[in-house]
Amino acid sequence: MSRYGKRGDVVVHEEEPFNAETGPAALAEGPVTATDAFYVRSHAPVPEIDPEAWRLHVDGLVERELDLSLVTLREVFPERAVTATLQCAGNRRAGLIAIRDIPGEEPWGGGATGTATWTGVGLADVLALAGPLPGATDVGFVGGDLCLGAKPAERFGGSIPFEKACRPEVLLAWGMNGEPLPVVHGAPMRVVVPGYIGARCVKWLERIEIRSRPWEGYFQQVAYRLLPPDGRPGPGAGMPLGLVALNSDVLSPVDGETVAAGPVEVRGYAFAGGERHVARVDVSIDGGASWSQAELLEDLGRWAWRQWRITFDLAPGEHEILVRAWDSSAATQPEDDATLWNPKGYVNNARPRVRVRAA
Amino acid sequence: MSRYGKRGDVVVHEEEPFNAETGPAALAEGPVTATDAFYVRSHAPVPEIDPEAWRLHVDGLVERELDLSLVTLREVFPERAVTATLQCAGNRRAGLIAIRDIPGEEPWGGGATGTATWTGVGLADVLALAGPLPGATDVGFVGGDLCLGAKPAERFGGSIPFEKACRPEVLLAWGMNGEPLPVVHGAPMRVVVPGYIGARCVKWLERIEIRSRPWEGYFQQVAYRLLPPDGRPGPGAGMPLGLVALNSDVLSPVDGETVAAGPVEVRGYAFAGGERHVARVDVSIDGGASWSQAELLEDLGRWAWRQWRITFDLAPGEHEILVRAWDSSAATQPEDDATLWNPKGYVNNARPRVRVRAA
Repeated sequence: MSRYGKRGDVVVHEEEPFNAETGPAALAEGPVTATDAFYVRSHAPVPEIDPEAWRLHVDGLVERELDLSLVTLREVFPERAVTATLQCAGNRRAGLIAIRDIPGEEPWGGGATGTATWTGVGLADVLALAGPLPGATDVGFVGGDLCLGAKPAERFGGSIPFEKACRPEVLLAWGMNGEPLPVVHGAPMRVVVPGYIGARCVKWLERIEIRSRPWEGYFQQVAYRLLPPDGRPGPGAGMPLGLVALNSDVLSPVDGETVAAGPVEVRGYAFAGGERHVARVDVSIDGGASWSQAELLEDLGRWAWRQWRITFDLAPGEHEILVRAWDSSAATQPEDDATLWNPKGYVNNARPRVRVRAA
Repeated sequence: MSRYGKRGDVVVHEEEPFNAETGPAALAEGPVTATDAFYVRSHAPVPEIDPEAWRLHVDGLVERELDLSLVTLREVFPERAVTATLQCAGNRRAGLIAIRDIPGEEPWGGGATGTATWTGVGLADVLALAGPLPGATDVGFVGGDLCLGAKPAERFGGSIPFEKACRPEVLLAWGMNGEPLPVVHGAPMRVVVPGYIGARCVKWLERIEIRSRPWEGYFQQVAYRLLPPDGRPGPGAGMPLGLVALNSDVLSPVDGETVAAGPVEVRGYAFAGGERHVARVDVSIDGGASWSQAELLEDLGRWAWRQWRITFDLAPGEHEILVRAWDSSAATQPEDDATLWNPKGYVNNARPRVRVRAA
């Protein structure tokens, strides 16, 4: 029992700010992740917000500034829904830490990702009411959470391109899997930007700013950037992360598991970010010498991962399961090598490897 | 002197149908490829078309069918321009053939790609005049070239998603680098689909069909599909190619070249397809143990490749230059390994390797 309510199958990395990843059993249960097991990445304690007093403020390059209550948002705009996979840019960081230590960053396994059906209003609808002015290129979001880890301390924030912000899949969400959005996931309202890293899906949203340049805050200019292996974090160093990378993982069996020899069903997910879809998932049990195509399971639409399964007949002994997903541009995941290591430990999208023992 | 006019720095693979790739010197000259050196991929001889009698026929799921002459197209629609990189899905196939032979396919080196400024009318404008009906999901193109290699013989064709077809970058082009489109490149009109494989940029366009499903023709259902290594070509086998993959190449020095020891400028290109841009290009001369970031040169917009350069001080002896480009989703090119091999030899986007001798 966390202070943020009963939780399902999660691995808690930090109690305050609360950081927890989904356990493999919950991920393997089906394509939609249970809300109480959905991963949480926080940079600050949950802010105290009175939903009745809360207002969403919209400003910047707009014809008219807005201050919208939840009641107004519900009355003025149609409710929209999207089933979307969120993924922390640090998901699977543990695999990079195994190559070389990454101090000061959460050692996420493969559970800093999950899929939910989000409901709320379309960001595009809100932007249209505000009236974007010429020169709008980016849309920034500010949460209510004051992050002491930023230097100087600041509220969590980030921006996405204006073009993306106008697309119908980007929501200001108040619902998650048919229930009100839990406080730990950003209630009363969070941004959901399908296809972008979780860091752009700002929780406890308080302000939207239409801008003429990307966000200058710490969480986009210093954190959440991909540095070269010898790079040092600093304003503007490295490249900003934004779009989610092609990735996959094995969800069952788990690494180190002992399974009964004979037919073993291997299950996992693959996600290509939405602009591209998962075209194929190959699985090898001979170190990549030969590959078999997994069966792709239920299609929840372009913004959701695709779960997959394949059965191998495993003889008694040690086996390594190796996976590579392909996207619809015929790109595939990089080899599992040390070149993916980076000082902040982001974007581990190496082909997953899971060792099992059949007995 | 080919029957299709004087050509610049090209390597001719076949005289009829004419198939030629751009030489490395022409590619290295600058970000826009000279028209007379631009690669040509043809599946049939150039059809004889009288531009005055030529009509563009638009049908399928439309409110009104259209038959548009060049004069009408010029009068009715605004002229648009896009600088876009085209790339044959078989570009760099020679690198795959080196792993295992691929009989019956053109052994393209790295020159089945190039960048030009295309002018013409927006496909979206033409579609809007025809009035797409509900249920439109794809837009098909048919050229005037009858391809005897298809079984049964058919005119070259293919389709793109309706959503892409409505985007402003997709042109019906009659101009190339400020001159009329040459006949060998598809005059009087070719499709230009930035970010898609060259095979969707149908030449000698005669018909546009608004459809409720992807193209059923040979060049989308059998050819231009990515098969698993042990797959066999056949209707619907493998995955259809569409979006261009993240790729890069070294343009200078060329593989096997002897250069003067001392500072050596390495130049190349990287292309991420447009929905994603080139974020970084790393170059290694120690087999990937260490990487240096190349300087990205002139930015011609999202639909064009990015040329790059970097200078290394090369001691006398043998050196191998290894490159990896990263896109804005932090995906990178796959390792150069045999797993990219596929029976039709498509999408070789392995990290390029160029061996040089410094003397």
